[in-house]
Amino acid sequence: MARIVKKFGGTSVGDIDRIRNVAARVKKAVDEGHEVAVVVSAMSGTTNQLVGYCRDAAPLHDAREYDTVVAAGEQITVGLLSICLQEMGVPARSFLGWQIPIKTNTVHGSARIEDIGTEKLEECFKGGRVAVIAGFQGVAEDGRIATLGRGGSDTSAVAVAAAVKADRCDIYTDVDGVYTTDPRIVPKARKLDKITYEEMLEMASLGAKVLQTRSVALAMKFGVRTQVRSSFEDTPGTLVVDEEEIVEQEVVSGIAYSRGEAKITLVALEDQPGQVSHVFGPLADANINVDMIVQSASDDGKSTDVTFTVPEDDLQRAVKVLDAAKDQLNFQELQYTGDVVKVSVVGVGMRSHAGVARKMFDVLAEKGINIQVISTSEIKVSVIIDAAYTELAVRALHTAYGLDAAE
Amino acid sequence: MARIVKKFGGTSVGDIDRIRNVAARVKKAVDEGHEVAVVVSAMSGTTNQLVGYCRDAAPLHDAREYDTVVAAGEQITVGLLSICLQEMGVPARSFLGWQIPIKTNTVHGSARIEDIGTEKLEECFKGGRVAVIAGFQGVAEDGRIATLGRGGSDTSAVAVAAAVKADRCDIYTDVDGVYTTDPRIVPKARKLDKITYEEMLEMASLGAKVLQTRSVALAMKFGVRTQVRSSFEDTPGTLVVDEEEIVEQEVVSGIAYSRGEAKITLVALEDQPGQVSHVFGPLADANINVDMIVQSASDDGKSTDVTFTVPEDDLQRAVKVLDAAKDQLNFQELQYTGDVVKVSVVGVGMRSHAGVARKMFDVLAEKGINIQVISTSEIKVSVIIDAAYTELAVRALHTAYGLDAAE
Repeated sequence: MARIVKKFGGTSVGDIDRIRNVAARVKKAVDEGHEVAVVVSAMSGTTNQLVGYCRDAAPLHDAREYDTVVAAGEQITVGLLSICLQEMGVPARSFLGWQIPIKTNTVHGSARIEDIGTEKLEECFKGGRVAVIAGFQGVAEDGRIATLGRGGSDTSAVAVAAAVKADRCDIYTDVDGVYTTDPRIVPKARKLDKITYEEMLEMASLGAKVLQTRSVALAMKFGVRTQVRSSFEDTPGTLVVDEEEIVEQEVVSGIAYSRGEAKITLVALEDQPGQVSHVFGPLADANINVDMIVQSASDDGKSTDVTFTVPEDDLQRAVKVLDAAKDQLNFQELQYTGDVVKVSVVGVGMRSHAGVARKMFDVLAEKGINIQVISTSEIKVSVIIDAAYTELAVRALHTAYGLDAAE
Repeated sequence: MARIVKKFGGTSVGDIDRIRNVAARVKKAVDEGHEVAVVVSAMSGTTNQLVGYCRDAAPLHDAREYDTVVAAGEQITVGLLSICLQEMGVPARSFLGWQIPIKTNTVHGSARIEDIGTEKLEECFKGGRVAVIAGFQGVAEDGRIATLGRGGSDTSAVAVAAAVKADRCDIYTDVDGVYTTDPRIVPKARKLDKITYEEMLEMASLGAKVLQTRSVALAMKFGVRTQVRSSFEDTPGTLVVDEEEIVEQEVVSGIAYSRGEAKITLVALEDQPGQVSHVFGPLADANINVDMIVQSASDDGKSTDVTFTVPEDDLQRAVKVLDAAKDQLNFQELQYTGDVVKVSVVGVGMRSHAGVARKMFDVLAEKGINIQVISTSEIKVSVIIDAAYTELAVRALHTAYGLDAAE
């Protein structure tokens, strides 16, 4: 017998038939003798509709009222799922954020969970009842409903799992696990049985949109064993766990890529102390997140080229901000393109293995792919390349690091 | 300066534009210097949609979960109205039932309000903020959301008005007040400036569906001056008040009618003690509400005819129940028809004026309309007649009691 928290997203509870399917999945786990709590999102489409209402009411609106409106979505699904479970003979009851309570700070619209009451949930476990918990919402210190921001239901599920010391948190999604890379690009991609929190964090933030980054960070912090699995098929998924749980760690676990990047180069920027902060200060003020930065060596000691990446959605704003500061910054030319992709090799094993980056550069050079920017972390090497080479690069790297599935 | 509770129903908040209109109405009262709290229903259609979801999930469902689901409707509108008010520069904040709290008993689905906390509402009044309160919902002793049943928002508004000792409770509807009778039948019907609680109760329960019966009873109990007025036009409506406030009381205030009636006659029922309870016991067990009852004199001391009315919607069930008990009841024949209407003359003035009933019978006789059943109360005389004569009867009575508007 295990204690399991299960989380189902908006598409999994998109209509009554699907909610009934979810109930059947939950019943199966209960019948197997497990203690089960469920966290659900709003029916798909509902949250967008409610957000739309708020925007129509006023472009700039009180975040506390916004939270009150959008939290209604999860309120509907917890009631409906409880009804479906009861109809199948599974004792169940719904919980809203304020009823548990899931206490948050007062940053309405993107609140952080501060504490979760476990008394009522333990009562449910003890009484053999399934607690059906509204994701995405809590109650703030001001006594008002607070929401956790987009994807917040993953975070709710992991936080509940941590609070009740669950053996596992199952996150049901429309994919059946985490793959070595995108199977749409590489048919030979393999589903991973296990992946470490650190790797999952890199994969998640790099665009493998399976788990919300914040929920992975939380799972890592509290050591919540988190499983990504399919809403539609009853197969084991990918377990996100501590490094220690993975006995034979591959050097590289996966190849991630992210298309939503743009590259900006300031050509012949005056090379003097503090100049870099003059470049990035205005961007930070405009709330534009700069990712990778490369500064070329200055030939004459007077000028240098600075290249960096920003989210493609922010490219036009970034160019405007830099153009406005041109006189102050004193650069010769501003070049930019959204036609790039970030490709990354991820694996905790590279900590103890040299040559991972070197192999990446060799493979790309072999295919005639020019590397425009490089950045590395302890468990990741990322490069920016021309977007046209995305598939070629990902496939070549996938093969080179021995990730291809056996024929 | 007055303290006013305003209630807006589902059609008044049916979309964002209408919610904005409501906000403008509220702003006007605030600008005039009044202390204002607002009670709102769910957007029209929302409650039916949510009720439909629950029915689809399971025909028989946990009332507590049903309440959780349907209460989401009002949650959405309080947030949106608060946003619209703020956008117009009116300080406002939303309150859900549990936040005030509006405490109810645990009869989920049709709970009764037991207590309303006034502290937070008084704070709003003091701080010049409009409290926007979710109607139809409260929190039960079990800590779960409870709803008050259909039309419950009227009841919420009157209860809040009573709790904060408001000078007036304005109920906004799609008609501009209470009329002497249905203006669609009698073009000369007049809007009443004032009507007593007792009269309004009779009118409401007789099918003049302007105010929910329960809210009128509550207003009477706590002496809440309640105004029925138009959501769409800014005209004074009809004030429902204590008898003492109406100086010159008309003998008859209005003519009501109700089409949803059916008549059943048991012919030649064995006349013996306890027989009536044998008839009405099974109907009560089947939850069928019997309204007017007439028993004819028994000619031979052995058999009698019993005629009574039931809601038309329950007619088929009632016939089935009586047929099943035919042997036990020992009647000769069962006659029934849904083709009848109940017409009533209502007025507190008839307490002190004789001849009101007599006049009614005379007028109907004059028009050749046969009276099938009669019942009277202190302030009302009701008759059952053939439905075909509805308009003729209502018009004749309206004229006879001097209710027609001046040309």
